[in-house]
Amino acid sequence: MKTDSTRTGSFTLPGEAGYEDLTLNLAGRWGADTIRDSDGTVLSDRITSSGYDIYSTLCLVRSDNTWAKANRDKLQQNYLMSFPVVAETSEVTIDPLKGYFREQFVLNTSDDPKEWWQVFDRTTGEEVPAADWNFDADSGSVVVKKAVRWHKYTVNFLVSRIWEEISMYNHITNEWGDRDHLMAIEPRYPETQEFILTYLKKWLEEHPHTSVVRFTSMFYNFTWFWGDDPNLRYIYSDWGDYEMTVNPLALREFEKAKGYRLTSEDFVNKGLYNSTHNAPSRRYRDWMDFVNEFVVKFGRQCVDLVHQYGKKAYVFYDDHWVGVEPYGDRFKDFGFDGIIKCVFNGFEARKCAGVPGVKTHELRLHPYLFPTGLKGEPTFKEGGNPALDARNFWVQIRRALLRQPVDRIGLGGYLHLVEPFPDFIDYIELLTQEFRMLKEYHVDDKPYSAPGKVAILTAWGKLRSWICSGHLTPGLDLNELIESLAGLPVDVEFISFDDVVERGIPSDIKTIINAGRVGSAWSGGADWKNAKLVASITEWVAQGGGFIGVAEPSAVDYGSQFFQLAHLLGVDRDTGGRLALGKYAFRKPSGSHFITDDLTGEADFGKDVDNIFVLDGETTVLAEKEGSPRIAVRSFGKGRSVYFSGHKCTPENARLLHRAIGWVSDSEAACSIWQCSNVETECAYYPNHKKLVIINNSGTVQDTRVSVPDREPLEAHLPPHGIAILNVET
Amino acid sequence: MKTDSTRTGSFTLPGEAGYEDLTLNLAGRWGADTIRDSDGTVLSDRITSSGYDIYSTLCLVRSDNTWAKANRDKLQQNYLMSFPVVAETSEVTIDPLKGYFREQFVLNTSDDPKEWWQVFDRTTGEEVPAADWNFDADSGSVVVKKAVRWHKYTVNFLVSRIWEEISMYNHITNEWGDRDHLMAIEPRYPETQEFILTYLKKWLEEHPHTSVVRFTSMFYNFTWFWGDDPNLRYIYSDWGDYEMTVNPLALREFEKAKGYRLTSEDFVNKGLYNSTHNAPSRRYRDWMDFVNEFVVKFGRQCVDLVHQYGKKAYVFYDDHWVGVEPYGDRFKDFGFDGIIKCVFNGFEARKCAGVPGVKTHELRLHPYLFPTGLKGEPTFKEGGNPALDARNFWVQIRRALLRQPVDRIGLGGYLHLVEPFPDFIDYIELLTQEFRMLKEYHVDDKPYSAPGKVAILTAWGKLRSWICSGHLTPGLDLNELIESLAGLPVDVEFISFDDVVERGIPSDIKTIINAGRVGSAWSGGADWKNAKLVASITEWVAQGGGFIGVAEPSAVDYGSQFFQLAHLLGVDRDTGGRLALGKYAFRKPSGSHFITDDLTGEADFGKDVDNIFVLDGETTVLAEKEGSPRIAVRSFGKGRSVYFSGHKCTPENARLLHRAIGWVSDSEAACSIWQCSNVETECAYYPNHKKLVIINNSGTVQDTRVSVPDREPLEAHLPPHGIAILNVET
Repeated sequence: MKTDSTRTGSFTLPGEAGYEDLTLNLAGRWGADTIRDSDGTVLSDRITSSGYDIYSTLCLVRSDNTWAKANRDKLQQNYLMSFPVVAETSEVTIDPLKGYFREQFVLNTSDDPKEWWQVFDRTTGEEVPAADWNFDADSGSVVVKKAVRWHKYTVNFLVSRIWEEISMYNHITNEWGDRDHLMAIEPRYPETQEFILTYLKKWLEEHPHTSVVRFTSMFYNFTWFWGDDPNLRYIYSDWGDYEMTVNPLALREFEKAKGYRLTSEDFVNKGLYNSTHNAPSRRYRDWMDFVNEFVVKFGRQCVDLVHQYGKKAYVFYDDHWVGVEPYGDRFKDFGFDGIIKCVFNGFEARKCAGVPGVKTHELRLHPYLFPTGLKGEPTFKEGGNPALDARNFWVQIRRALLRQPVDRIGLGGYLHLVEPFPDFIDYIELLTQEFRMLKEYHVDDKPYSAPGKVAILTAWGKLRSWICSGHLTPGLDLNELIESLAGLPVDVEFISFDDVVERGIPSDIKTIINAGRVGSAWSGGADWKNAKLVASITEWVAQGGGFIGVAEPSAVDYGSQFFQLAHLLGVDRDTGGRLALGKYAFRKPSGSHFITDDLTGEADFGKDVDNIFVLDGETTVLAEKEGSPRIAVRSFGKGRSVYFSGHKCTPENARLLHRAIGWVSDSEAACSIWQCSNVETECAYYPNHKKLVIINNSGTVQDTRVSVPDREPLEAHLPPHGIAILNVET
Repeated sequence: MKTDSTRTGSFTLPGEAGYEDLTLNLAGRWGADTIRDSDGTVLSDRITSSGYDIYSTLCLVRSDNTWAKANRDKLQQNYLMSFPVVAETSEVTIDPLKGYFREQFVLNTSDDPKEWWQVFDRTTGEEVPAADWNFDADSGSVVVKKAVRWHKYTVNFLVSRIWEEISMYNHITNEWGDRDHLMAIEPRYPETQEFILTYLKKWLEEHPHTSVVRFTSMFYNFTWFWGDDPNLRYIYSDWGDYEMTVNPLALREFEKAKGYRLTSEDFVNKGLYNSTHNAPSRRYRDWMDFVNEFVVKFGRQCVDLVHQYGKKAYVFYDDHWVGVEPYGDRFKDFGFDGIIKCVFNGFEARKCAGVPGVKTHELRLHPYLFPTGLKGEPTFKEGGNPALDARNFWVQIRRALLRQPVDRIGLGGYLHLVEPFPDFIDYIELLTQEFRMLKEYHVDDKPYSAPGKVAILTAWGKLRSWICSGHLTPGLDLNELIESLAGLPVDVEFISFDDVVERGIPSDIKTIINAGRVGSAWSGGADWKNAKLVASITEWVAQGGGFIGVAEPSAVDYGSQFFQLAHLLGVDRDTGGRLALGKYAFRKPSGSHFITDDLTGEADFGKDVDNIFVLDGETTVLAEKEGSPRIAVRSFGKGRSVYFSGHKCTPENARLLHRAIGWVSDSEAACSIWQCSNVETECAYYPNHKKLVIINNSGTVQDTRVSVPDREPLEAHLPPHGIAILNVET
């Protein structure tokens, strides 16, 4: 089935100076059209002049450490909350940085602590008046006077960061010893902007062979606060939090732009900061908007400069991506030519593939060409099996690419490490061909899916499409769910509570899914106190919509129910206050049900939600555990709802989810065609190409039958991780 | 070891007319001094004149159904919340009683619904103005006008009860067919009081042989709302809730007495009512106090009348006990001569034994002389083993009676049922002798316990001493814990958050235990937002106190911690918002620890609390599960604290608890004497009698060693459920 078009193109190879023969040889075998450098590698002249396109990585905020050292007042800053101290007398002394990694943070004492810091009595939750505490510059301590004995006190304080986090992580992990500690500079100062643009211009002049400047990424890293104690090294890490974008200048500009002032507590938030996983406040979202506006505006100047030099600008959708917001309305204004995402899973492939406003979408596949993986496991060294790793990652990505294509794939790291692994080299050759073939099927075509969209309803909506903060968080219901969803034959979009309240539910949506734990950004929190939101969805279901709730959908401790949509779901959760209330004694139906028809044995959602109870006899429970329903269905008006007590991405649960979407949207028939009998296999049908692609997601041989409209099912026998392409006329 | 004094007295036998020989024979063998009637049995003249004291049961509020039927406006009432109805148009019709058992409830429409009922939009939580709804007397429905479409509406409404719940339960369970439905009358009306006193006087005159009037109990039953649907028969049941004490007259009198008016929502409370398990509101506690005052005042008149006839008055600490409050300050004012409690477990024995202000404390043991037990299992019929049942109940009661005696024990039910079970008859003979012997050891003596009291800290404090609402609620941490505690050699008292805030911590307390789930009356709820409470306990621990927290101690979603005493416990709980925060990587110590020294294998607390994290390296984790600490200890100032993730009453956990109390109160040595090596066995030493009592709580043979001060341990070999008495000089 290999054709010429599957042999070359759309592949980025990490080249390596000193291994020119290997680089060019593999570029040929893998059909590369582009060669890139990586962290720790350079490209030689022989490579850059070999006729391939050249990607060069560039991180503008840590590009020149000499300038950073000479301009310490231009380093990036953030707020921290000190660890609490219990007052034993009426005077409490707090060393704000105690417990924090002093190689990452230094106190910012140039900006007046009395203006920018806050002290809190965390026992009462009240702020201590500025008159009742002092900062002692000599000792670096805050002294709280008039403390209430036995109350707990904390300080919110500003720090400058003296070690850029990605550099710090690589430095410490790889034991780089006395190599320089890179520092991130703050682009909001005019001087910094001037420096960056000058630097970039010089860089562009010095890199004539570069075709694509691959920004890693723009200006602000995701938040990563380190601790002093090796037992608490990562005090706080959040891939989407804007904590590291704050400083007095930005706060003043925010006040001018938005008409009100933020405080340190808006960032510190009782020590929880503004984790992407938690339902965001309005004030924090204003801050995100303010930062995004700046990042796009200044970022655009950088991209324009790249374009002036006849090069393309790609952005890496990781690391310093904060403020970039590829799913934000302003993203198109950057003028980027491409976006590159490092991916382990299917949902990340969709996350990259779905970014609007950019021409080229590229995946950086795993394994990275490093001796060890992210968790320290061997990859390209003795004991590793990188070919198997590559297969396992690929089958997760591949099912997502069946649904939505990307334009390119690539690898990263030290190319010379692959030499002792000829089976890896062989597999990548196969993989690149498979990729090109699948990409081809999407041209002028769209794989079959049942009509009607599935909307994932969260606090973030479109802004965090296909994301639950960073890579997969195992056990996080929505994250597991979007991984299942990434390869299902359904059209997906992400909508927010605000969208529903302000604009209603788009008419092409047939299913809404709300999934996650109470108070999270995914399930939502106080938004569910909004009667308009509850009424909108209720009305929409009554008129025929389908609602799927997972874990603690629509949950908030409010009113006479915990799930605010309990009347739709037919179940609610007892969080402890209902001990004296009877529970309806449901019985599982004796017959089968469309949703669970492919389920063999017990449903397993991992660590799911317990203490679910049924409202009355109109709810049908399809699965339960110790008396707590795990799958329940109910009709409401013309619509339907399904409740799942959790979700773990497994072949069986992906199928359950697909069938639930089919049932809840009243599309059982449409959901039953182009469907594989064996849950370890999946398929996609491209009607214009008349191609049926069947994939085996497992590492063992599988037989499967595919249902086809108006004829007998087709049979297929697939090797481990295998693929079959059938020509099917309908 | 049997002596004469162990052969007779302190035992109440249920007699039965028609079985006079059996009655008098067993009275002799079991050493009864008193014969009683039971529900469904009567005593014949031959029995009542046989020289034994005679108990007669009497329930004043359901004593004369003819009067009740003729005075339906004097029946007891309560509020109910209708099941919610979703508005599909701007007018919603609600049948308030829909889903409720119409043989129990009828609408009270004589008191103006507009004055006494409330309608709520439960989607917004707001009350619907009275002008916007109507009650239609013809249809018995409430019509909400101007409803917001797709919002949920409920009605709080008043009902009269036409079937007294205990009578209803027995009637339906035993299929009594067309036997009369007894109705409970409301004693707050002057006419009812007059009727009751007249009735009682007549009754006393007609029962010359009765020595003791055993009231079952006073006027108000615990709350028990039944449903129409057999799958939801018990909509709400709470052994301590005052829901069934309300009516317009009482509400008006409350307003006069307390100076403010309660609403229906104070009772309905979003459909959660005022379950004993949930942290009570101030308004509800005012209501309890108001009702208690009335019950004691009118109850006193009844007791006085009994005394005028030369009889004694005992009260049953179950059924219609609401308003009696044996641990309340007014209880002594009733003038009762005795209190009787039906018991399954050790904590219930302590609950009865500890009631102040009354001379005689009596336990009604299980099994009840009925063909089947409470859950329908066979007892006195084929397939039953009542002798084994009696042993199993007795060993749980016995360990409590080692710590605190009661004056009497007894049985209840149909005596003739025991005839086919001679081993039961034999065992009761042994049991009564064992009881009398143990009772004797308490005379002028007190079993050894380590110095310093253990205080159980809850929202209810003393008022709910040794109670978590009714019989054992399996899995309820505090209930399981007080069952363990009931037989431990420690002195116990119950204190409330109010006690601590208003009066501080009594000086004889060395250990405070706070146990339960967030928001419960046991762990507490919003009380923990009170900085004075937090500071008091913090100071007390800093100065040497010991704090034990179980499950979610001091928990409330407030400030920068979930456990408000996290700084003492050294652990806190992540309820979901800390996904981005790192967790301190604790390590279990390699050596042994005093608390876990008797623990073999893993700790098992049943369904305990997860997602616990450690604050820092000063916390020592002694047991964990999947990374979540189950037992953790920490020092704070001069004091100590222990955290347990839950409690299930098992021999091993009772020992863990005892050792934790010893460690946390700095009394390891005092806690290690008069201690059994084998956790299946326990002992008590009575220093004045110089008797060491060793009990085997298990159904198998056990060997054990008892540590004794200044000498070698004593060894004992005990048969199943056995007891050994050793004379020990110290």
